Amino acid sequence: MAILFLTPSANAASRWADGLKKQFAGEDIRINSGPEGDGDVEFAIVWKPPPGRLAALPNLKAIFSIGAGVDHVFADPGLPEGVPIVRLIDETLTTQMTEYVVMNVLWHHREMDDYAALVAAETWRHLHPPRTPERRVGIMGLGVLGSAAAEALSRFGFSLAAWTRRPRAWPLGEAFSGPDGLQPFLARSDILVCLLPLTPETAGILDAAAFSALPQGAVVINAARGGHLVEADLLDALESGQIKAATLDVFEQEPLAPGHRFWSHPKIRVTPHIASLTYPDAAAREIARNIARLRAGAPMIGVVDRDREY
Amino acid sequence: MAILFLTPSANAASRWADGLKKQFAGEDIRINSGPEGDGDVEFAIVWKPPPGRLAALPNLKAIFSIGAGVDHVFADPGLPEGVPIVRLIDETLTTQMTEYVVMNVLWHHREMDDYAALVAAETWRHLHPPRTPERRVGIMGLGVLGSAAAEALSRFGFSLAAWTRRPRAWPLGEAFSGPDGLQPFLARSDILVCLLPLTPETAGILDAAAFSALPQGAVVINAARGGHLVEADLLDALESGQIKAATLDVFEQEPLAPGHRFWSHPKIRVTPHIASLTYPDAAAREIARNIARLRAGAPMIGVVDRDREY
Repeated sequence: MAILFLTPSANAASRWADGLKKQFAGEDIRINSGPEGDGDVEFAIVWKPPPGRLAALPNLKAIFSIGAGVDHVFADPGLPEGVPIVRLIDETLTTQMTEYVVMNVLWHHREMDDYAALVAAETWRHLHPPRTPERRVGIMGLGVLGSAAAEALSRFGFSLAAWTRRPRAWPLGEAFSGPDGLQPFLARSDILVCLLPLTPETAGILDAAAFSALPQGAVVINAARGGHLVEADLLDALESGQIKAATLDVFEQEPLAPGHRFWSHPKIRVTPHIASLTYPDAAAREIARNIARLRAGAPMIGVVDRDREY
Repeated sequence: MAILFLTPSANAASRWADGLKKQFAGEDIRINSGPEGDGDVEFAIVWKPPPGRLAALPNLKAIFSIGAGVDHVFADPGLPEGVPIVRLIDETLTTQMTEYVVMNVLWHHREMDDYAALVAAETWRHLHPPRTPERRVGIMGLGVLGSAAAEALSRFGFSLAAWTRRPRAWPLGEAFSGPDGLQPFLARSDILVCLLPLTPETAGILDAAAFSALPQGAVVINAARGGHLVEADLLDALESGQIKAATLDVFEQEPLAPGHRFWSHPKIRVTPHIASLTYPDAAAREIARNIARLRAGAPMIGVVDRDREY
């Protein structure tokens, strides 16, 4: 039986080949191969798998995403029924995301871009940002990544709130949920951090209505998926001054298109989907553990709810 | 009896006036007054006091710095003997410094300036920085500020070391001390953070010899005092590539002089001594507590060792 790695990214394929061969010594590891030998494939490890490709694997037992999100798997209209889809839960993903969120929240909290502009004009001036307990940070999503980021932020003493799709108890700040909770949550978020999974329910949630609900001069950090953000609405809200600045790691189209307004927008910091990079060796180890669990008849970790697409 | 606030900064004087009057209701608060009435002054609260001014106060019982450092007090050659000098220990100073250090260490760790340069060229590329446990961060100074910053960094999983002037036990990483410990400490510091007090022993410690001892491509963060850094040596080390980048909050001369090379140096991020801003209300409260202790015959907190100037 074989393990098939599927991705359109030549870079990912080359970075993963070694890690997979090392982790799965003795197994038949294939990179973007097929259709010959498709019947041997027991497990697929995927990033943006070519639509219809997974359906052509008659003996598939599980589909493993190499990212924390699985929207790129559900984007395949021919996704085979009855095969478990497993997202990656890997401590290195979580710690990287926590770093990214803490770093960027502090950056905006401490008004570092404003200082950079003053320094560029050779101006020595003290700004007086609100103290940390008065700075209201709102986290959208309390999954593995959102919870870890919120916990790290709470240690700095920020005034925290969280919004989740379904109600949940949360000890670190105010908890809001569902459509009714969205407006009041946004109204008290000076710095908004999106860490939601991308599902039909959350697509486009960062839109003109959301930006209007935020306090004037709020900051938006999106480290979830490009599909959460209505790009044109963000540009309008930055133009009007309703939103002060945005830090974006993810985009509707990735890589971000040449000439896209975001590349050089003075109020947008772009990072190229690096908030949480998958390290092939660590990720392959987690996937191997799940395959061992499956073979031993034990439940795998990170199996996705197909109805919620998360 | 009176409390005299002394500073050459008009901005500080105006920001402090209200806080002091509120905190010391009923007391005689004076801002930069004298020489008439100097005999009434019991306590001086100072930032860079005019040389000789403190010596003219015959009934002075204590000198309070409004910063964590007291080098600006010892800079007065006429500093009166026998009057306790008290530095400010204030939780808001500590938390701000921790924020500044964590934010800037993460910024360099995650190579955010390199990403900004790529994005400015509309280039979508993943860099692959070492993982956090492989990134070696070196903290110089384990006082109140250094210890708090180190503890926060340790939670992110960095490989930590610290250097102190005298040996001390330290549970969070490798501990180095004294002149003999400096080179081996520097040799394992990819990101160096200076949080030392400025004393005759530490002045100019960030010099050409130190930069040569760091790993090639190291980053230097100075949030202590400008006097720790030999500015010309830093420029040389950046020019040669031995040092990759520097983040500097403090300078030999503040405000940084117009036209100074640091303002626009592409490898230097300047912030205008804002890592830890004194909030007059919080600081005045700590000073009032110390005055109450003194009047009650109890020891004050933060009294400086005159021999060590710290």
